[in-house]
Amino acid sequence: MNIHDSQLLMPGQMIDVQGSADLRQIAIERVGVKGVRAPMRWRLGDGTEQPSVGLFAMDVALPADRKGTHMSRFMALIGEQAAALDMSQLIALHREMVTLLDARRGRIEIAFPLFLRKAAPVSGIESLMDYQVTVVVDGTIDHAVADLTVLVPVTSLCPCSKTISDYGAHNQRSHVTVTVRSSEPLSLEALIATIEAQGSCELWGLLKRVDEKYVTERAYDNPKFVEDLVRDVAARLNEDKRIQRYVVEVENFESIHNHSAWARIESDA
Amino acid sequence: MNIHDSQLLMPGQMIDVQGSADLRQIAIERVGVKGVRAPMRWRLGDGTEQPSVGLFAMDVALPADRKGTHMSRFMALIGEQAAALDMSQLIALHREMVTLLDARRGRIEIAFPLFLRKAAPVSGIESLMDYQVTVVVDGTIDHAVADLTVLVPVTSLCPCSKTISDYGAHNQRSHVTVTVRSSEPLSLEALIATIEAQGSCELWGLLKRVDEKYVTERAYDNPKFVEDLVRDVAARLNEDKRIQRYVVEVENFESIHNHSAWARIESDA
Amino acid sequence: MNIHDSQLLMPGQMIDVQGSADLRQIAIERVGVKGVRAPMRWRLGDGTEQPSVGLFAMDVALPADRKGTHMSRFMALIGEQAAALDMSQLIALHREMVTLLDARRGRIEIAFPLFLRKAAPVSGIESLMDYQVTVVVDGTIDHAVADLTVLVPVTSLCPCSKTISDYGAHNQRSHVTVTVRSSEPLSLEALIATIEAQGSCELWGLLKRVDEKYVTERAYDNPKFVEDLVRDVAARLNEDKRIQRYVVEVENFESIHNHSAWARIESDA
Amino acid sequence: MNIHDSQLLMPGQMIDVQGSADLRQIAIERVGVKGVRAPMRWRLGDGTEQPSVGLFAMDVALPADRKGTHMSRFMALIGEQAAALDMSQLIALHREMVTLLDARRGRIEIAFPLFLRKAAPVSGIESLMDYQVTVVVDGTIDHAVADLTVLVPVTSLCPCSKTISDYGAHNQRSHVTVTVRSSEPLSLEALIATIEAQGSCELWGLLKRVDEKYVTERAYDNPKFVEDLVRDVAARLNEDKRIQRYVVEVENFESIHNHSAWARIESDA
Repeated sequence: MNIHDSQLLMPGQMIDVQGSADLRQIAIERVGVKGVRAPMRWRLGDGTEQPSVGLFAMDVALPADRKGTHMSRFMALIGEQAAALDMSQLIALHREMVTLLDARRGRIEIAFPLFLRKAAPVSGIESLMDYQVTVVVDGTIDHAVADLTVLVPVTSLCPCSKTISDYGAHNQRSHVTVTVRSSEPLSLEALIATIEAQGSCELWGLLKRVDEKYVTERAYDNPKFVEDLVRDVAARLNEDKRIQRYVVEVENFESIHNHSAWARIESDA
Repeated sequence: MNIHDSQLLMPGQMIDVQGSADLRQIAIERVGVKGVRAPMRWRLGDGTEQPSVGLFAMDVALPADRKGTHMSRFMALIGEQAAALDMSQLIALHREMVTLLDARRGRIEIAFPLFLRKAAPVSGIESLMDYQVTVVVDGTIDHAVADLTVLVPVTSLCPCSKTISDYGAHNQRSHVTVTVRSSEPLSLEALIATIEAQGSCELWGLLKRVDEKYVTERAYDNPKFVEDLVRDVAARLNEDKRIQRYVVEVENFESIHNHSAWARIESDA
Repeated sequence: MNIHDSQLLMPGQMIDVQGSADLRQIAIERVGVKGVRAPMRWRLGDGTEQPSVGLFAMDVALPADRKGTHMSRFMALIGEQAAALDMSQLIALHREMVTLLDARRGRIEIAFPLFLRKAAPVSGIESLMDYQVTVVVDGTIDHAVADLTVLVPVTSLCPCSKTISDYGAHNQRSHVTVTVRSSEPLSLEALIATIEAQGSCELWGLLKRVDEKYVTERAYDNPKFVEDLVRDVAARLNEDKRIQRYVVEVENFESIHNHSAWARIESDA
Repeated sequence: MNIHDSQLLMPGQMIDVQGSADLRQIAIERVGVKGVRAPMRWRLGDGTEQPSVGLFAMDVALPADRKGTHMSRFMALIGEQAAALDMSQLIALHREMVTLLDARRGRIEIAFPLFLRKAAPVSGIESLMDYQVTVVVDGTIDHAVADLTVLVPVTSLCPCSKTISDYGAHNQRSHVTVTVRSSEPLSLEALIATIEAQGSCELWGLLKRVDEKYVTERAYDNPKFVEDLVRDVAARLNEDKRIQRYVVEVENFESIHNHSAWARIESDA
């Protein structure tokens, strides 16, 4: 704003500094809020709604002639969310944001932990596993893309260690992080199950001794390098014709080193 | 375990390795699980229940002659929680854990974000603020103490900067972290409100322009060093006769430096 | 590998499991090591070498017919670094890595804190400021690009808050993160100075009272929204014809909220 | 400060707000700076000096009648450090701080990564391992105690998993964190070696295949629960008569779960 604007104001009226014109002639691709923590619910494929806590980031494009965006409108949008979220609800929220902020395009990102009940492999005892999920909707009102990311922890067991050793094999927790863009909404539960099946073994929150025997032998029977894990996940994603684009990253927190082995495959197929 | 134990087992029976005797003659003060993420609900003072996501740590004392504890029992306890938690429910959970683990004493810690709806100071517009809460119950079945910790973000404005400058004053976000042990359960909402009132100004998720004018002037009218903030919170806690022990820590993320100013007062009064 | 391979080995010889052929027909874009902490020295523009601690990630492309890469070669490369690093030394290291790993292309990323001595604006007293630097070299032996990222903390003071309030204005620490790709190596010190000059005020490790008066008034005289800050940095980068591509991100850790305002400009000019 | 103080100032003179009297009658146990990153060197037992980057926190006690401490003096002290640090140098720095800040007592904490060169167990190939070290000196000029903390990553292999499974055993990276207070300075390298020897196997940055066979079989031959690991480290510390007080914590990042097993032994012997 400049001083002349403020002289034109009526008593008690406040200047809209953000609404002023900007003379630098530089558009801003993305401007908004970040690091906003808020309660939310995620609707699973079976219609059940799971309460969680989301970390929200929302931003919009700002044309070169506009000085600022309206930060408080993002917060109002986040605060007003009453409905449970799923991918189609997120796209509706994205439309609402782009309209409310009077923007050409915008982006919403929400990261939250999701909990799934799993039965242990032998005893059948049930417990919760937590998965870190991130959803992103990005684009214009007419053309927005939705990306779904899930971090799935699994066990990996080293084939080299198994082969060269007379007994045993080093193994460790690994993080498989998959981002998918699809032609129709995917079931998050099904995607997680597909990824877990590619580990040397999957994880559970609670295991009885019969289960611990199973997971130990299962991992030993099923050794995988970080290269195998990333390829096996990619191979399964390649089979799903609904998936238009994916990124798979695997990080093995090596039990014999103080660093990670890591691999990534990206496909735009 | 040793090989002779395993020869005594019936076919199909599995050895309870953790249940064996230990010969090192060293008791373990605390052993259990850590980093367990699980959904939970917290019951507020007004009876409403707020869904959140907790990070759980649970441990028990293990006598010198016992080889190991039963890790899966902690997980079963966390998974079976159906009721909303508050301080008295936590103490009941602590009793259940110590009994189930057959332990002399134990400790439960749960950290979770809590959300409170606040009305902006002038416009009255409502939004959520998030506070990081940690609850700990520690001790024997007959004598356990409960500590409540809450991290409250506020604004601090530097008195020195205000005094020596012709205009303006540097200010920043500060974290006030208070741990209290009390003779009767305290209202978390009331404790947060007490702490917020000691900042140069409190924070809100959503502010209109009239509110932004208010918070700017309020902070400028109410400058506080990190020393003032920690003392003012301590002074208020000193007035509450139900509080038996407290720790106050304040960290100012200085806007003029790349480090923090920090202070701590501890009282066993 | 299968058991028949191992039967062909000479006594005492070990199988090269990673060297086997792979039948899945899936190439891996990037595979290597991550989270490797190692001491290093960075060579500044004036030729002085600064000791620091780097977090290294190194990876290479793996063709579809190769089962695995040689993880230990990355570690050997990191461990053998004796020379101080700068951008041209990094490109040499990249060449060495791609050759040693027998790869079509590869990527090296090193993140480390850099310390610069600054004189306070009035008293002239000197102190160190720390900046988080990340350098990346990515590509083939013949065509690799080098990106330099630096996170520069500054003060931002809100123009709206200043305008609408009778006195004071909220301000806070902000992170300006700039990534540049340039036709010739840039001086890191000069880049940092350029970025710092765009803040409402820059930061120092140590300020006397005369300096604190200066920085308070300087910020108040120079209010900037997150939009102003990101544009002003972009405008300066636009003027430097050696810069081929850049990304500017600004995050304001708002002193009146518990979340950040954030903006980003990207240019391939 | 109050307005009368400022009226007594000579022109051009600035008020010492922090030096004023305080009327709340509340002493502050600890006040100072936190999150200060600075380059430093640590002197090892053999006299060699290792460059690293430290995270510094420094604070002093403030009596009830003093309004504030002198934050800039801490920064001057950190910035002026030219000599390499070891435990006796740290105690000298502590004395200097307490004197300079005119305080009854004070505390210095520095956290930094330390790198040790290790030879692989069979091939003898050398590489660096990184250990997170924290040193604390706390107390008055005449009576200060020094605590040394080191986080040592090792492999742990589950005895239960080994016993109940026909082949294999789950294993993972574990963090053993030991804090010791001793009657005379301990060798950090010797302490680390003692701790590493208690793991199912220790870690190396770089292993050849013959080494990988060794570490795999070594861990399988040497299974340890989190309880075993914490006790075995405690047993070794009990044998060292120079150690007056210690805390041992072990966290196993379980490869079959998404949470940790954890144990702690504390001794004031």
